[in-house]
Amino acid sequence: MDSYRKLQEKIKTILQFQSSMGIIQWDMRTKIPPRAYPQRADQLAMMSQILHQMITNPEIGILLADVEKDNQSLDQNQKRETELIRLSFNLSSALPEKLISAEAKQISISTSRWNKAKSTSDWTIFQPELEKLLTLSKERADYLMEPTGTTLPYDALLSIQEPEMTSTIVTKVFTDLRKSLVPLVKKYTAKCREIRVDFKNYRVPIEDQRKLVTDLVNYVGFDTISETAGGRIDESAHPFTSSYFDDTRMTVHYYEEDIFQAIFGGLHEAGHSIQGQSRNPQWKWMILGGKSSAGINESQARFIENIVGRSPEFWDYYYERLRGFTNGAFEGVSLDEFVRAANVIKPTKIRVTADEMTYALHIIIRYEIELYLFSGKLEVADIPHVWNEKFGKYLGVEIENDAEGALQDTHWAWGYWGYFPSYTLGNIYSGMILETLEKDIPDWKGKLSVGSVDSTVDWLKTNIHFKANLYNP
Amino acid sequence: MDSYRKLQEKIKTILQFQSSMGIIQWDMRTKIPPRAYPQRADQLAMMSQILHQMITNPEIGILLADVEKDNQSLDQNQKRETELIRLSFNLSSALPEKLISAEAKQISISTSRWNKAKSTSDWTIFQPELEKLLTLSKERADYLMEPTGTTLPYDALLSIQEPEMTSTIVTKVFTDLRKSLVPLVKKYTAKCREIRVDFKNYRVPIEDQRKLVTDLVNYVGFDTISETAGGRIDESAHPFTSSYFDDTRMTVHYYEEDIFQAIFGGLHEAGHSIQGQSRNPQWKWMILGGKSSAGINESQARFIENIVGRSPEFWDYYYERLRGFTNGAFEGVSLDEFVRAANVIKPTKIRVTADEMTYALHIIIRYEIELYLFSGKLEVADIPHVWNEKFGKYLGVEIENDAEGALQDTHWAWGYWGYFPSYTLGNIYSGMILETLEKDIPDWKGKLSVGSVDSTVDWLKTNIHFKANLYNP
Repeated sequence: MDSYRKLQEKIKTILQFQSSMGIIQWDMRTKIPPRAYPQRADQLAMMSQILHQMITNPEIGILLADVEKDNQSLDQNQKRETELIRLSFNLSSALPEKLISAEAKQISISTSRWNKAKSTSDWTIFQPELEKLLTLSKERADYLMEPTGTTLPYDALLSIQEPEMTSTIVTKVFTDLRKSLVPLVKKYTAKCREIRVDFKNYRVPIEDQRKLVTDLVNYVGFDTISETAGGRIDESAHPFTSSYFDDTRMTVHYYEEDIFQAIFGGLHEAGHSIQGQSRNPQWKWMILGGKSSAGINESQARFIENIVGRSPEFWDYYYERLRGFTNGAFEGVSLDEFVRAANVIKPTKIRVTADEMTYALHIIIRYEIELYLFSGKLEVADIPHVWNEKFGKYLGVEIENDAEGALQDTHWAWGYWGYFPSYTLGNIYSGMILETLEKDIPDWKGKLSVGSVDSTVDWLKTNIHFKANLYNP
Repeated sequence: MDSYRKLQEKIKTILQFQSSMGIIQWDMRTKIPPRAYPQRADQLAMMSQILHQMITNPEIGILLADVEKDNQSLDQNQKRETELIRLSFNLSSALPEKLISAEAKQISISTSRWNKAKSTSDWTIFQPELEKLLTLSKERADYLMEPTGTTLPYDALLSIQEPEMTSTIVTKVFTDLRKSLVPLVKKYTAKCREIRVDFKNYRVPIEDQRKLVTDLVNYVGFDTISETAGGRIDESAHPFTSSYFDDTRMTVHYYEEDIFQAIFGGLHEAGHSIQGQSRNPQWKWMILGGKSSAGINESQARFIENIVGRSPEFWDYYYERLRGFTNGAFEGVSLDEFVRAANVIKPTKIRVTADEMTYALHIIIRYEIELYLFSGKLEVADIPHVWNEKFGKYLGVEIENDAEGALQDTHWAWGYWGYFPSYTLGNIYSGMILETLEKDIPDWKGKLSVGSVDSTVDWLKTNIHFKANLYNP
């Protein structure tokens, strides 16, 4: 037990350090002045290096071996924690320190370049930096094959996001999905053509949208306003959530003439945020308190966004409140019209605003491109071409510029290869979770109608969030 | 030279780490959700501990000894850098690691308590946490007497802010100052009674004040808006600047009915910010690139705030622009009336809004209290009593509640003992700097009149800012 306790102390320090880095990364995505990027790149490279030294400290290896040799006295949670530490130790030990700091630095640079490239819609600004990052990421993937027990570089990265997942499984699931979705999308797009959507682009001042989103995310349970709030809302080019227990931050990107982005993007990040805050607080400084998988994380975001947030019952109650924040913009729009517009099926260019049916196709395109890149079938320079071609083929959508095409997402700039599949896996998980919810609380939708989101959210907290990383998906 | 190069590499890492902590501290003062304070306290305690380990690394001691033994090959800057590293190494090595993390944690707690105490105007909320911090600070002071070569605990802390300064000197300067100021304040207060000041409390919406401050600080040379901006403006209970070269952040506290706080507080922090950004960039990761002393730092802030910002010539040009931002609020106020109001002498309760003449008395009161605390003549519980008494005696001002009294400043909550004298020393320095400026650019005020602040600010950059920590004051 003494070795376990010592090990736990070391992990605590590591997680304190890592979560501090999380604040600095959040800052880089929300607040940093433009001139500070190169300086921040140096800082983050140095911190990544220190973190790597901390995790690969040989003392951890010795303590781990001690604990593993004699683990009968550990309870189930402690056993799981030990396994998670072992995995983390092996993964980090497989990576050379030089690679760690080179990657950290390159991520800062490519993030800054991506920002610029997106705002000018010019892939060539981003391309050389993404190429450098991809080279480093491939190197990482090669090193990680052994400790993850995978046989393909891409699978090594994938399995870090989604334990035990392989591209063989994903490809099979996604191929089936694509084959069913392409005709379905065609059919329902035609059916939805008559639905009124003009008001989606009504002008709503950003100041009003901010107030609405604040009310909305607090309504579903993400506290950003009380005296004991553990959350906040900021703005960034690409919405994301950065969460560590009592310090959880989501972002929104507001468009004056697209309030639906703020509403459903806001609900999505609120889903992440509530989950991030609702982990077992006793595990705050344990790997057990982290995420089970990226897919499970996304399932919670998409549960709130889609299953709760696009249901007629949710809007039964909340629509009047939304009207209160939008100063007459929705005066002539009935509840029914609003809900239909929120559920319209229509192929579009942008993933984060895609409807539930076309969404998976956005993901599949990204996944296929990642597979090509890692198998050497595709060069970074050709991504936009392949992207645009696939959007035409699967969705019948013509991409006119890269800002709305291959530059729309920030993931690759962050080196998040193997992450995109999680969104669709998350959608699938959320459907499975819904099945169980319906058994446990048959009237959950009725409760939404009368303004009680709590019963559903509390159920998610108890059954999913609180358990954090106790089980693999 | 090889040892020097190795030493420099280590210092670079340390400064990268320390400046990263600066971002996290800035976050704690501006953005942190309230519930995250305890978690942040743990994170900062851990980081302080790591930083301390880095600075006191015995390898640094060995390299230092090497370099010092054979320093003929070093140029003047490298010699200065070596001395600064030696001082930093000796100071840190004198402090036990346990104290470092206890202090860091206590500072997070007392900052959070101070926020609460100030907002409810209740000293007793703050008192127990300040007592704990003072005990730790006294311990620190005891340890630092030897490496600073001082003979009093308070002097150890003072000399860290202001190299070679002692309380004997400060007490002498401040006693003379107090004796001359008290009658002068009485005389000029009477003279100023007829000056029109009603418009100082005109209501100006905070949104308008934000736009004004952004324009104003950019006008004087702190870039927060261009595509290559290295600065930003935020809001906090207590205005401050956090600066590391290309990443420099100032805060403002807005009051709807006190626009002068935003204007002159904004100019003050802009002064800090411009200085922070204008250090020799080649010294970015050297101690040489840091601050010479807290007093020199304050001299630059107060130069922009007072010598530039309260001059009639400055407003000759800028007053019309101010009017453009304030939507008619100053319609019936002449330029002359505005400038007089900005220079009115009137004893008040709040340091940051005090006029140039009464300001030093605010500082002297704090300094005297600090001396009492460190010599054991005063308990934390009695601070408000002594505070209020001295305000009556020196300034003829009656303090009605602690929020406007001993709770107004955040310095003690941060453990910044020995810092307050720097403001008045800074004022004195800024007068000396003005003398030299007048020789170099006799018409500097004329240039202000026609909208050229650059000539003055560039002169400060070249002669003060760029030289950073090359000399002691």
